[in-house]
Amino acid sequence: MIALLTDFGTKDYFVAEMKAVIYSVNPKARIVDITHEIPPQDVYTGAFVLWRSYKWFPSGTIFVAVVDPGVGSARLPLLIRTRHYFFIGPDNGLLSLAAEEDAVERIYKITASLSHRSSTFHGRDVFAYAAALLSRGVAPNFLGEEIANFVRLERPSATIKDGLVYAKAIYIDRFGNIYTSITKDIIYKIAKINDELCIKFYDKEFRAKFLETYSAAPPGALVVLVNSEGFLEIAVNRGNASEELGLTAGADLVLYRC
Amino acid sequence: MIALLTDFGTKDYFVAEMKAVIYSVNPKARIVDITHEIPPQDVYTGAFVLWRSYKWFPSGTIFVAVVDPGVGSARLPLLIRTRHYFFIGPDNGLLSLAAEEDAVERIYKITASLSHRSSTFHGRDVFAYAAALLSRGVAPNFLGEEIANFVRLERPSATIKDGLVYAKAIYIDRFGNIYTSITKDIIYKIAKINDELCIKFYDKEFRAKFLETYSAAPPGALVVLVNSEGFLEIAVNRGNASEELGLTAGADLVLYRC
Amino acid sequence: MIALLTDFGTKDYFVAEMKAVIYSVNPKARIVDITHEIPPQDVYTGAFVLWRSYKWFPSGTIFVAVVDPGVGSARLPLLIRTRHYFFIGPDNGLLSLAAEEDAVERIYKITASLSHRSSTFHGRDVFAYAAALLSRGVAPNFLGEEIANFVRLERPSATIKDGLVYAKAIYIDRFGNIYTSITKDIIYKIAKINDELCIKFYDKEFRAKFLETYSAAPPGALVVLVNSEGFLEIAVNRGNASEELGLTAGADLVLYRC
Repeated sequence: MIALLTDFGTKDYFVAEMKAVIYSVNPKARIVDITHEIPPQDVYTGAFVLWRSYKWFPSGTIFVAVVDPGVGSARLPLLIRTRHYFFIGPDNGLLSLAAEEDAVERIYKITASLSHRSSTFHGRDVFAYAAALLSRGVAPNFLGEEIANFVRLERPSATIKDGLVYAKAIYIDRFGNIYTSITKDIIYKIAKINDELCIKFYDKEFRAKFLETYSAAPPGALVVLVNSEGFLEIAVNRGNASEELGLTAGADLVLYRC
Repeated sequence: MIALLTDFGTKDYFVAEMKAVIYSVNPKARIVDITHEIPPQDVYTGAFVLWRSYKWFPSGTIFVAVVDPGVGSARLPLLIRTRHYFFIGPDNGLLSLAAEEDAVERIYKITASLSHRSSTFHGRDVFAYAAALLSRGVAPNFLGEEIANFVRLERPSATIKDGLVYAKAIYIDRFGNIYTSITKDIIYKIAKINDELCIKFYDKEFRAKFLETYSAAPPGALVVLVNSEGFLEIAVNRGNASEELGLTAGADLVLYRC
Repeated sequence: MIALLTDFGTKDYFVAEMKAVIYSVNPKARIVDITHEIPPQDVYTGAFVLWRSYKWFPSGTIFVAVVDPGVGSARLPLLIRTRHYFFIGPDNGLLSLAAEEDAVERIYKITASLSHRSSTFHGRDVFAYAAALLSRGVAPNFLGEEIANFVRLERPSATIKDGLVYAKAIYIDRFGNIYTSITKDIIYKIAKINDELCIKFYDKEFRAKFLETYSAAPPGALVVLVNSEGFLEIAVNRGNASEELGLTAGADLVLYRC
């Protein structure tokens, strides 16, 4: 199984050509799309989405992730073997959150490529091709050379001081729900279900109840909950919190029990 | 075969995690996306799209539909066996138009779930998981308890009085074509091909010819036709009727032969 | 393998019904989406995207392309056998750039269709159905009648006169990169890597360096390069050239070495 995550969108032929290369090399490959809607060249969001989703896939899955503003430059093409998976993509941190969590076993600089490799589309000419060969049983050391290290990003985090939690808005999902960098462990240190929370960002402040589900709040009301990924999330029941609050990814947050 | 319909969009990891759970349980599953672009939390549109598409799928297909504003509340998770298919999703009417048309045979409240079930993502933790087990041959009574009833929505309908058809705009497709709730049977009671039809909505009125194909009208002209789903549709040949008329889903319509 | 390209989008049930028909006829079919985001009824863009992507697919792939403003009119439904592939779709030029490049061997007017064929959805009722039968081994002459010719579009082209290249912007990709109709052969007649190029469109003019990769330019800078498809492309490193320049597909361009 080969799972794809890119910022290529679906309106062009980029993803199709990656799949076509994979099927040409391995007609029996099973390909799953994670998403191709990572915002263009937003490596951090790509790393986050890969990190959240990888562990649900069957052991042995090959992940091909391409958010690659440095394509054609000196950045290395990577193949990482972890305890349960393989991760393939550019060495810009994109693979790091997922690969480190699963435990890195071997790191390779990919040297394999289609013979007519372009300077601008390694997703097809290097990464898809290497994944297809790997899925046919070609050993990693035939696809590249082992190296010692790779670029790592930091996981989202939050700190508590004097009862205030300092955090960030890290991700906005399709429903406008705002993921904060506050994990379950941290929020339960300062609050419990049904508490009223106060949240500041920029020069604004709002209150919301800490509940267990969206629908525990009245329709249209703000709610704060621990989401299915284990992060504290700011939402509006049947509404779009990001639009209503004007709060987007990257904003600094301060949160406390009101 | 497992067919998915959700309002999850494709930018996040929601759909990928559902597929990953399915493949983890049943590596041989065949998954088809109906759509993930149902407007957020729009149960009626989800029910409509499922109703129009289900019958084209092979007998035995398992449909997993998730448009679920009440996730985590008391609404039941459903598994319905119909004459030819299985339908899995929340008990909010989403499954009802399709399931009733195919003839309901058994209704179950799903009790199976992943062991670390979240309160906010039953698409993955309950519905995808149950579908995967079902696709491996686990019998429905191992996945839940039989119940007597489920939430049903009303089919789109229209009425005729004194030569006037009272109806609604029920769906706008990608091309801006406006589906009305007027079926083929009803329109042929008051009009025939090449008639001029008058249509009122809000305080506006327009005329359009009743034709058989888009291209029978001149480019840019309004046309009314019976579409491939059997509904009377308002369209603009090579244009976008919804935008040009300012007519969106939900609007009341009155239609008559001019 | 059956590869699909349409302007149907993914929010409706159109693509799902095509796939459902294919799987109903051939449960073992492998279906790949090229894209469904061709701008509505934009036959040229559809032809371009099909042309760029077809050759990456395994030999024997059946392409079903549907951008079909004339559906239901006299335009013929086509099946073309080329040296390595089959192409199925409306006779409006959509298939022509790809089919001609691969070398046309036989052309058929499709006569097969689902028994309840609609006037407005040949994607499902004619093209998907014919592709599914073909993928099961039904010979083309059982699906239609051989004909002598089909509608052909012109390939993108550019001309040089007195050191000026006269060309067009032919395609804008997801990143806002602007593909010109200038091929690699032509640009190297008037310029070499690291030259400064001047480009006029409408009453505007801009300069950009001719480089090999996006990342060879500073972030935010305009760059001109030969892209992975062999076309001269105008881009902004880590930016969106189409938006920044206000340059969209169809614009006339004049380019020269400054």
